[in-house]
Amino acid sequence: MSQPVITPEPPYYAVIFTSIRTSDDNGYSKMADRMLQLASQQDGFLGVESAREEVGITVSYWRDLEAIRAWKQNAEHLQAQQLGRDQWYSTFTTRIARVEREYSL
Amino acid sequence: MSQPVITPEPPYYAVIFTSIRTSDDNGYSKMADRMLQLASQQDGFLGVESAREEVGITVSYWRDLEAIRAWKQNAEHLQAQQLGRDQWYSTFTTRIARVEREYSL
Repeated sequence: MSQPVITPEPPYYAVIFTSIRTSDDNGYSKMADRMLQLASQQDGFLGVESAREEVGITVSYWRDLEAIRAWKQNAEHLQAQQLGRDQWYSTFTTRIARVEREYSL
Repeated sequence: MSQPVITPEPPYYAVIFTSIRTSDDNGYSKMADRMLQLASQQDGFLGVESAREEVGITVSYWRDLEAIRAWKQNAEHLQAQQLGRDQWYSTFTTRIARVEREYSL
């Protein structure tokens, strides 16, 4: 990853996850790959884009709030979220946003 | 840049700009710096986060749709948008999204 995502006509939802990593790399990359794989299998998942420099930005796209809720509560994802809070991120913000318009080149 | 942005209580708006750059660097970095400076002076601008790897992701935050519209129509920004389409980006997508919830570590 990460290639540009082709999304359907709005409305749909975006989860904007911005983070600063700790220096603790213990299992992070492997877990990130696994979460990407697992997310892409969820009902209502539309795609994900990700980049990191000083700040990491991951934007995942979802059909509706119900799909986001189900993913947030996924058992394996809950474990990853806990490890993220405890070990991998010094700070993060998750924003849930309804995409109302989009245009492309 | 780019440091994590502290945003107010939702609702507010996010502009999610994802792009692939061309190899043409002619003036790009200078213009990107200028647009960042100019955006931050706009009424209703709340902050911006940006990172680029394979894909570039810039998320800017705004008080409301009116502030986004005014920024989109800013004369200097219109010139930059034209150069972006003509020279700097091989592909991009702009998504306008209403942030409904946020939570942080």
